[in-house]
Amino acid sequence: MGTVDSELVDALVGVVGAGHVLTDPEVVAGFATDWTGRFTGSAGAVARPADRDEVAGVLRVCRELGVPVVPQGGNTGLVGGGIPYGGGVVLSLTRLDHLGPVDPVTRQVTAGAGVTLAALTAHAAAAGLDFAIDIASRDSATVGGLLATNAGGLRVLRWGSTRDQVADVEAVLADGQVVGGVTGLPKDSTGYDLAGALVGSEGTLAVITAARLRLIPAFTERATATLAFDRTEDAVAAIAALRVLPSLTSAEVYYDDGLRLVCAHRRIPPPFATTYPTYLLVECADNEDPTEALGAVVETLVGLRDSALAVDEPARRALWTHREAHAEAINALGPPLKLDVGVPPAQAAEFEREIRAMAAEVAPAATTVLFGHLAEGNFHVNVVGADERADALTDRVLRAAAARGGTISAEHGVGVAKAAWLGLTRSPAERALYRAIKHAWDPDRVLNPDVLVADPAT
Amino acid sequence: MGTVDSELVDALVGVVGAGHVLTDPEVVAGFATDWTGRFTGSAGAVARPADRDEVAGVLRVCRELGVPVVPQGGNTGLVGGGIPYGGGVVLSLTRLDHLGPVDPVTRQVTAGAGVTLAALTAHAAAAGLDFAIDIASRDSATVGGLLATNAGGLRVLRWGSTRDQVADVEAVLADGQVVGGVTGLPKDSTGYDLAGALVGSEGTLAVITAARLRLIPAFTERATATLAFDRTEDAVAAIAALRVLPSLTSAEVYYDDGLRLVCAHRRIPPPFATTYPTYLLVECADNEDPTEALGAVVETLVGLRDSALAVDEPARRALWTHREAHAEAINALGPPLKLDVGVPPAQAAEFEREIRAMAAEVAPAATTVLFGHLAEGNFHVNVVGADERADALTDRVLRAAAARGGTISAEHGVGVAKAAWLGLTRSPAERALYRAIKHAWDPDRVLNPDVLVADPAT
Repeated sequence: MGTVDSELVDALVGVVGAGHVLTDPEVVAGFATDWTGRFTGSAGAVARPADRDEVAGVLRVCRELGVPVVPQGGNTGLVGGGIPYGGGVVLSLTRLDHLGPVDPVTRQVTAGAGVTLAALTAHAAAAGLDFAIDIASRDSATVGGLLATNAGGLRVLRWGSTRDQVADVEAVLADGQVVGGVTGLPKDSTGYDLAGALVGSEGTLAVITAARLRLIPAFTERATATLAFDRTEDAVAAIAALRVLPSLTSAEVYYDDGLRLVCAHRRIPPPFATTYPTYLLVECADNEDPTEALGAVVETLVGLRDSALAVDEPARRALWTHREAHAEAINALGPPLKLDVGVPPAQAAEFEREIRAMAAEVAPAATTVLFGHLAEGNFHVNVVGADERADALTDRVLRAAAARGGTISAEHGVGVAKAAWLGLTRSPAERALYRAIKHAWDPDRVLNPDVLVADPAT
Repeated sequence: MGTVDSELVDALVGVVGAGHVLTDPEVVAGFATDWTGRFTGSAGAVARPADRDEVAGVLRVCRELGVPVVPQGGNTGLVGGGIPYGGGVVLSLTRLDHLGPVDPVTRQVTAGAGVTLAALTAHAAAAGLDFAIDIASRDSATVGGLLATNAGGLRVLRWGSTRDQVADVEAVLADGQVVGGVTGLPKDSTGYDLAGALVGSEGTLAVITAARLRLIPAFTERATATLAFDRTEDAVAAIAALRVLPSLTSAEVYYDDGLRLVCAHRRIPPPFATTYPTYLLVECADNEDPTEALGAVVETLVGLRDSALAVDEPARRALWTHREAHAEAINALGPPLKLDVGVPPAQAAEFEREIRAMAAEVAPAATTVLFGHLAEGNFHVNVVGADERADALTDRVLRAAAARGGTISAEHGVGVAKAAWLGLTRSPAERALYRAIKHAWDPDRVLNPDVLVADPAT
């Protein structure tokens, strides 16, 4: 692979203008490290194109000179998928922040790759609608990043992952050719699904420049409750019962240890005067008030120890804070090892106990906190202070997930963080197919060559 | 390519058993012709494997001997995508009809490729749920075929196409290796989306053997109405207004000429005593009766000439018959040319007039009937008696769709019927990518070689 030299920088300046090629090492370093500080690479330059044609220009220049290109959005990923490990150019897409009008018939909107999730949601709200994906990094995470990682979040239970919100994609191939489009066509069964192939591809196949996205109704009424249980299996059974409500949107699990951290960190009271081992935060959204319907099902739940129903918006926000402040409360203890594992929900309870036992055995001095999206059997495992035991614990937890027919990455992607473990859940035939797919799209391995499929096709 | 000889037949018998290799020419002919009679090929044999491993065995045998394999489900497709043009073996998947238990937490179910849509829907209903896709060929169409064509149908407006119902796929590659899986994992962001790549791939990449499918609530209450308008643009505007109702599920357009055919063919009365040019059939589904909410929006519609709200289930079925009996009423006139075009909905009205003008000009003696899914701008164009003008009219209509940023196949697929026109809506870069994707999955071109990507990768 080539390196970034003055010839390349001059060529990049010719494409995007001098003000949008960053080469100051301190500035570049900010784009070469992820926000957690766990993943660090080095880049010769950052190019900030204004539009699709400039993206194509940057790609042509880099391919010509044999320099790798790492696409980057808000740099909020958790698996190092947007970090330039092997040097090269960071292609920052935040200037592609165009938002088109909302089509009232199809309820679709065109968004540039650099539009933040918060901006997209606000744009939808102005049209009386909403965007289904909601994640904690909403102010920084971009449409391009959401698509590249197939982001999940807090409402997957009802609306699916990012993949399910995408009607179409416009992207630039490594050779600068444009494929796909965002013309406002709501349905098309012509040929292979290029948009589908790009969602979740972590910047390794093509550079997504815009997406045609589906919006959902902006419901006016919500019912939010925190339910207390002794065991995770009771919470899983509760979800099965609650699913009788079509308005059920979220079912988030957290535990006593995490709640204590959050309440201490934020200096807020817990949802109950008494302590329980397991909490499930559930929310229904509808245009008719779903409180009564939710309350009726809650009354029937087996194993329920206690319940707190939000009576107004501040109370609702308080219940959500118990769950959403987990990440910051954990980070305040030190940089966490973050794993994103999932199993079929019927196995979630046993898996939770297995993870805790492993953490106690492998890294007994560390603090291990679990929370996550229980309807998908998805636990975010956070371990602070694992230090030199981090890799050993990662290995154990990922193997345990795989042994249960689970996933080593339910919603964060593989990136570099989990590339070494891909073989746990993907067969030799599947990995060979991944390499062949990579080769079909990016035969010269220009795009994000160290991520996901790091070994070339044979 | 090799041909079917006694060596191949013996090998196939070794895999699936003598009773499941069909070679009687009359029997085979039934698998080599589509149900409309428009598309006819020839096959040396039909293999009917019982399970995934037998599918793999058939593929290994055929690849070894260089014989093409054409996967087939219910053979209800409309574009000749499951017909053996170049000879070879038809791989009939109807024996893969296993249905797993419905998971109450994830609301997902595993279905074999050969499960019919009707069987899947009944299975979901027994668990108090429903499957989102509904198409007229529900008694014959199979899960494998729905996925292979990314089938749409009557509820796309609310639930999306087949693609949006698929959580995971198990498939067999042309070399007999199995990829993917249907383990009950509801969410996974590990690597390229093989399931997404296979949905809509028309049997050209791998053989889908099972799918993990999402189910939807089985709503208890429905409100169904037929609305009459002068013009298609009024019906499009009505959909935009009706979308304020989250319960809106269907918005189907048909016209005076089609309604007359249906009423004469079925000997049933029309929805109104008066005749109107344009009809829109809308349906809302919810657990609370949506009749009042629908009625309130209908009262506000601009350009509404008349409306008929179903007061009971027989009345509801009667309104649906006006729309659903179109296909059989048209078929009774003679074998129709069927086109499946779509444009951004804002252009649907102009496009409808353009199609009618073209039909009048190119095939003035023919009967042209339009109906379709107006929320997606999707018209099914049916032309009876176009005879030798069929290709000329097809060419004109598909070009007109493409010129409006539309699709030559909104929901039926490309098959062989539209392969010659793929260049209208797919650029040289996109077609080259299609060929590269085909090569990545099926380098020896064993699977359905005459469909979709008929020219090999260079």
